[in-house]
This record gives sequence, structure tokens and C-alpha cells, in this order.
Amino acid sequence: MNSNPNEKENHEQAVAAGLTSVTVIGLGMMGAALAEAFLKAGHRTTVWNRSAGKADALVAKGAIRAATAAEAVSASPLIVVCVLDYEAVDNILSPLAGLLAGRTLVNLTNGKPEQARKAAKWAAEQGANYLDGGIMAVPQMIAGPNALLLFSGSSEAFTTYQKELDVLGSGKYLGEDAGLAALYDLALLSAMYGMFGGFYHAVALVGSEKVEATAFTALVVPWLQAMMASLPLQAQAMDANVHTTDVSSLYINKIGFVNLIEASQEQGISTELVAPIQALVDRAVAEGYGADGLSRLAGLLMKPQLM
Amino acid sequence: MNSNPNEKENHEQAVAAGLTSVTVIGLGMMGAALAEAFLKAGHRTTVWNRSAGKADALVAKGAIRAATAAEAVSASPLIVVCVLDYEAVDNILSPLAGLLAGRTLVNLTNGKPEQARKAAKWAAEQGANYLDGGIMAVPQMIAGPNALLLFSGSSEAFTTYQKELDVLGSGKYLGEDAGLAALYDLALLSAMYGMFGGFYHAVALVGSEKVEATAFTALVVPWLQAMMASLPLQAQAMDANVHTTDVSSLYINKIGFVNLIEASQEQGISTELVAPIQALVDRAVAEGYGADGLSRLAGLLMKPQLM
Repeated sequence: MNSNPNEKENHEQAVAAGLTSVTVIGLGMMGAALAEAFLKAGHRTTVWNRSAGKADALVAKGAIRAATAAEAVSASPLIVVCVLDYEAVDNILSPLAGLLAGRTLVNLTNGKPEQARKAAKWAAEQGANYLDGGIMAVPQMIAGPNALLLFSGSSEAFTTYQKELDVLGSGKYLGEDAGLAALYDLALLSAMYGMFGGFYHAVALVGSEKVEATAFTALVVPWLQAMMASLPLQAQAMDANVHTTDVSSLYINKIGFVNLIEASQEQGISTELVAPIQALVDRAVAEGYGADGLSRLAGLLMKPQLM
Repeated sequence: MNSNPNEKENHEQAVAAGLTSVTVIGLGMMGAALAEAFLKAGHRTTVWNRSAGKADALVAKGAIRAATAAEAVSASPLIVVCVLDYEAVDNILSPLAGLLAGRTLVNLTNGKPEQARKAAKWAAEQGANYLDGGIMAVPQMIAGPNALLLFSGSSEAFTTYQKELDVLGSGKYLGEDAGLAALYDLALLSAMYGMFGGFYHAVALVGSEKVEATAFTALVVPWLQAMMASLPLQAQAMDANVHTTDVSSLYINKIGFVNLIEASQEQGISTELVAPIQALVDRAVAEGYGADGLSRLAGLLMKPQLM
């Protein structure tokens, strides 16, 4: 396996520098970016992918190709897994349960909190330390200053390997509940989708009068920046559950929203992304919260709904 | 009317400084903030409100109380109107049509593009210059550095009175179509509502595990800032109608969205604000745009929908 001179050189340097050997399982765009980041940082990096060809580029850069998943797991104390979904994680790792004891498993596969908790329980049963992670970045951002990685699960694992994980981006540990990283990950994504959705409606609305998206966006960005300044204040109102406002009541928003919906319809724009927000504002007013501020709305999403 | 010594003094100063006399019609929270800004800038400011009591505080600060709307209109070459809705504008101004010739009417009442265009047509018929405006600020922000005011309609009116309007905030002229200010106003609001809606879902999602909104918001804000950097790039893709991506295809988003929806349901959170975004992503993929980036979505809102 160590026939590639680069690999040998890397390995020798890594051992000399006392750097941890790392295994990366799963070499899609994200997994490959993770492996490359470890390689660049000088770690002895073993890689494995179900279709072996995906390792070629990394091997050319000095990675060690594991012939089997078992070989990959056995190669390092720190195993990073980044595959399509938890079913793939299960398919790969279940047959290797006996090899995991004493190792640390960092699972960066996209999933749900319940899946992460189940994986953490299974890993603990195998004697492995388990850390679940959410990558708030696209592959191109990995190892750069703006890549945020969320971790939850074994605090011991995070403390032990924080230096190694920092190679990938800026890591944030959220707590012992292994589900938290997935929960935060999905929450941040929903915040992004909301912002994008509002932006798409806005662009479509001005686009109905042939206003260019780029010209309009020059106004949108500072406007959203200004409105974003209200988020910490709204969060304070939520935590205190005190939603009094002297700037913009839900009742005033309800009145104004009618113009937004009607104008969208008059301009021939679908209201599918904004009508649900209007419905929530209207429901809040109907439930007696008309004098409260918009911060009241988050709580209404936590009540059971008739969908 | 000029019995108040402050008024006299203000008037004399304004005349000495060559400042334009201004009339403000409508003294709700916003109208009062506008009148106060003009007063502070030294303008002879005449005010009128249907219920006269709302003028008291302004008169105490030096404003001139008009006994009737006709008197208010006659008092100044520049008339700023900020009332509840266009019906109120119509009720106040229609009987005064004969007094408007040669004056400039700046209508800052919330409304729709079609209403603004109709008002502009009517004002032109009376020989008045008409400027429609949207105030992207709450009353507390008026005259401050972050108050954005959008104007559209008569460019002559904007050029003539730009200095006076700058007293209220940072003014941006959008074009001769009087409907543009309302269109941009509603579009910016929809962008804000989208961002807020995504934030509320996110807070509710992490709140289901007792994560405090304030703690989470410290992560959300830099995350949204980073994602906001993509808006100008997405806008370029929209203007070029070229939506190829090497970072995040609609197909990948469709796959990931399932986790977001299922996790929300598993945590007991309503999906009412995010499910419509998922539906749009799914529709885009179904229509053959799976390899495109998210920027494709705005265009799909512009097609007629079966709602």
C-alpha cells in the first residue's frame, strides 16, 4: 500500500510531527474535500470509497488507498465518515463493529437528530467515541476561514481531536446530545431557505416590471442587513416570552400584508412563498396577539398544527 | 394661527434661510415623525390631521396647525401625505382638487403600485407634480442615517425637492413610473418576511430541544451574513438566465430538504413556513431543472400557478 513515494514521505513527516493518522470514508465532493484538507495539513490520510475510482485523485496527492472499509477503519484512531445518508453509514460500519473499539468516529453525513442519536448509541455499544457533525459549507469552502462545522456527542472526542477537526474549518461543539449538530444544521438551513425564498419573491415582484435582479439586489442586501439587526432583539423577546413592541405590531403587519399579497397577484406573481407567512400573522392576530411584535410568531410554530 | 411664539420664530428663521414651507397631512406615528423632522430642520411646517388633537404635540414644537385640509394644502408648495391608506388619501384630497395646481404632492401612504399610478394620474389632471414614496423605516428611524425612502413618479418633483426630502432619510429615486416605489417597498418587505420566517422556523426547531433563541441567534446571524453573500451572484444568474452551479444543485437541495421537513415533524414543529419552499424546489426538479442552482427558483414564481 505504501508504494507511492508521496505517501511514504507524507507518512514519515506526519509521524515525525506527531500528527494523528486520519481515515476518511466516503469520497463524494465533500468527503474528498475533507480528505484533501487533512492531507494538506500533513496528516497520514487513509481513504476509502465504495467505488474505488473516487480515491485516485487523492492517492495522487499522497493519500493511502484502503482496499476495504475494514482496512480503512483499522488504519487510524480517528475515522471521519461522510457518505450519502445514514443508511449508507449503517451498511458500511455495521459489519465492522468489532473494529471500532477505542477509536473515534466522526460522522459528518447529513441526517436528522434521531438518526445521529441512534448512531451514537450504536457506536457507544461498540466501545467507540462518537461525534456527530454538520458541515455548514460547500466543499469549496472546506479548510477556509468561512467553513463552519457543528459537532455534538462525546465531549471527550471533541476535546481529543479538536486540533485535527480545526483543519476542516471553524468547529463549534454544541453538547453531549449527539442530535444537536443535525438539529442546528437543519435549523440554519431553514433560516437560509427562508431568506432565499423571500429574496426570490422580491426579485420576481420587481421583475414583473422588468427591474433587473442585480440592480434590485444592491438595495436588498443593505436592507436585509438592517433588518437582521432585529434578530438578536427578537430572540431576547422570545427567550423572555415578552413580545410587546413600540415599532411594528402584528396587527399593523396584518394590514400591510394585504397590500403585499394583492400587489403580487396584480403583478402576476405566485404568492406561494409569502402567503403562508401572512396566514401565520393572521392566526397570531386571531389568537389575540395583535398588539405583540413579530417575535411572537416563532412560538406559534411550536404548537401542534392541523395541517 | 401664528400666535405661538415658537412658530413665529421658526417661520422667520425658515424665511430667512430660504427654506421651503412644507405641509404634512396625516399625523399618525409616521406622519408625526415626518413633521417633526421637517420642524427640526427649520422648515415652516403646517400640519393637519382628521382628528385635530394629534397635532398638539407638534404645535407645541413649533408646527402651524391648519384648521382644515384646504388650509393645509394652501399653506405650502410641498405637501407630504402619510395616512392610513389610499382611500383616506382620496377622501382628503378629492374635494381639494382645485387647490393642487402648481404644487408638489408627495404621497408616502402605504399602498400598491396600481394605487400609486392612479393617484399620479389624478394629480397630473389637477396640475400637480406627484411623487409616490415608500418609507423603509419605522417612525423612530426617521431623519436618522438608516431610514431609506424610495420615490417614484415625477423626476422634476424629486429634483426640485430632493434637499427637503433628504431631511427625512436617505432618498432613492426609482423612475417615472409612480408605481415603482410601492413595488420596491413591497418587494423589500417580502424579502424581510422571508428572512424572518426562516428565522422563526429555525428558532422553533432548536427550541424543541430547549436551546435558547439568543444563544442560537449568535450562530444564525453570521451564517445568514455568509449566505447573503450569494444573493448578488444569484441575481447575476437570474439576469443572465444561466443557472448552472458547481456548489449546490436543486436536486441536492431536494434530497436534503426531506431531512429538514422530517426532522421538523419529529420535533413537533409546524412545517407551514418551509414546506412551500420544498414544494417549489420539488417542482423545479420535476420541471427538469435539477442540475440548476437555487437561483432558478425566482423565475418559477413568475409563471402562472394553479393555486
